[in-house]
Amino acid sequence: MRNDWQQLLANMAKGSVRDLARLITKVENREPGWLDAMKIIHTQSGKAHVIGITGSPGAGKSTLTDQITRELVARGHSVGIVAVDPSSPFSGGALLGDRIRMSEVSNLDGVFVRSMATRGALGGLSLAARDVVKIMDAFGKDIVLIETVGVGQDEVDVVKTADMVLVVCVPGMGDGIQAIKAGIMEIANIFVVNKADREGVDRVVVDIQTMLDMGSDRRQKKIPILKTTASKGKGVKALVDTFLIGLESNHEQKDWVEDRVKEEILCLVEKEVARYVRSQWDADGKLNGIVKEVVDRKRDPYSVVEEMIANLINL
Amino acid sequence: MRNDWQQLLANMAKGSVRDLARLITKVENREPGWLDAMKIIHTQSGKAHVIGITGSPGAGKSTLTDQITRELVARGHSVGIVAVDPSSPFSGGALLGDRIRMSEVSNLDGVFVRSMATRGALGGLSLAARDVVKIMDAFGKDIVLIETVGVGQDEVDVVKTADMVLVVCVPGMGDGIQAIKAGIMEIANIFVVNKADREGVDRVVVDIQTMLDMGSDRRQKKIPILKTTASKGKGVKALVDTFLIGLESNHEQKDWVEDRVKEEILCLVEKEVARYVRSQWDADGKLNGIVKEVVDRKRDPYSVVEEMIANLINL
Repeated sequence: MRNDWQQLLANMAKGSVRDLARLITKVENREPGWLDAMKIIHTQSGKAHVIGITGSPGAGKSTLTDQITRELVARGHSVGIVAVDPSSPFSGGALLGDRIRMSEVSNLDGVFVRSMATRGALGGLSLAARDVVKIMDAFGKDIVLIETVGVGQDEVDVVKTADMVLVVCVPGMGDGIQAIKAGIMEIANIFVVNKADREGVDRVVVDIQTMLDMGSDRRQKKIPILKTTASKGKGVKALVDTFLIGLESNHEQKDWVEDRVKEEILCLVEKEVARYVRSQWDADGKLNGIVKEVVDRKRDPYSVVEEMIANLINL
Repeated sequence: MRNDWQQLLANMAKGSVRDLARLITKVENREPGWLDAMKIIHTQSGKAHVIGITGSPGAGKSTLTDQITRELVARGHSVGIVAVDPSSPFSGGALLGDRIRMSEVSNLDGVFVRSMATRGALGGLSLAARDVVKIMDAFGKDIVLIETVGVGQDEVDVVKTADMVLVVCVPGMGDGIQAIKAGIMEIANIFVVNKADREGVDRVVVDIQTMLDMGSDRRQKKIPILKTTASKGKGVKALVDTFLIGLESNHEQKDWVEDRVKEEILCLVEKEVARYVRSQWDADGKLNGIVKEVVDRKRDPYSVVEEMIANLINL
């Protein structure tokens, strides 16, 4: 392995937070040698519990993550936070204040916060999150929280990499149940109704319970629904109690771990091949002439694709 | 080309809506011969205008899409609707009523509605949407509306395939502007503040204008912000006027068309290679033994990935 990686790994092992951040950046950017670095990280990881926190925009996920982190730190845990911001596809930066709001908690002892843009994740968002979690794990964090803003499929894929998923709902969001779409319902291990000091909180609880009861999955009927008012710290202790107990019983399911590893390997191969395709055809403008022909309708994209694949793969 | 595809294409050319639906399903499922069928579809397409309609959950996008469709049909357009539902990763079905609500408009003359699950899209969601749009285009639809529920990255990618994007906001969704995240702001061609009979509508307009003014992109400052009350049909005529005018001036930008075609080709190659990878390693369980070794920490996933790629690609 190259020197720069070795140095970073050595400094990380000594507890350097700055080098932890640098290593994450280099892995995110897929700098040469990242696979070798991750091989070493992998051997050092596997101890952390990973908790996904998701829900509709405006549900107060950042405040809740903040409060959960404080509670975990008070109980002696070393916490990593992966904050997935839907960022601009053009500027690469988030316009909103989530990162700023989060920065306060990052000053707590043993807390490491990493924001991730949903764009610019070269390996895809869920793989990038997996990498960061693994690196934090290797660094010694025993609990990693993944906070995702939004309820898109990409975000669902991210929280599915967690050992346990908290879905955060909130009263008074128009249609109530509308905000909690099907894909999210089925990955929830705990429902949190946040902003529970607002009107309509009981209706949201009833709505969630009704949807859970309607589902065919018997597991779902037993999913806890907890109320919090994160801005006042209310209900957070009970929530942390609940998911810590849940984590213990959850960690034994081997089938589920195997499925996740298989998915990780297949995704890694797909994304690495995709990177190779782009570097081969896109970078040097080799594709530009072909694209012009397609735009002018002299060729169709599907024949182009067939040709490119035939050139690429050992069939 | 195989007989079944030829038959479907011939029936489609005669106007069979049933065979249009069948062809879409076969393409979605990537049944053998789909690339050849799409080559023919491609030569017949290129006339339709594509409009993306997106925004936060509960913003009333389905009702608005319904009203826009009625207005377009009244003006003599032939409309296709692609409704992208975030569906269950487990059951594959949407639990909520969007499809039912939408079905009414599908009885209108010349309207064809297709719901797409966000899961099960073998080629990825944005590619699947592109395919369906192209097929509807070839079938003779002159306007195709893509309605996406949610504001995730995958959904952003879908609406980015459109010629024009309407971002639907709504008063009283908690933080207001919170729901309209950065990635969405920058792909909007028109902002629609729906449910404009509600309190707080003017604040939403001001919030959007402020965000647009803050942006570095000068184009953004001129983006129209229109108010609608879709449930009462209010403001819909003006909205349709605005985007029809916009479509005419928008269609001339060749650079932008080339970028989109390049992205389509690269995505198609990536996804086809990914399908090949999965069919080779996953289907026959070849990967299961390796996965077990990784779970037992006898191997690491990164070495496995390196090996798989070396076997796959003509380097």
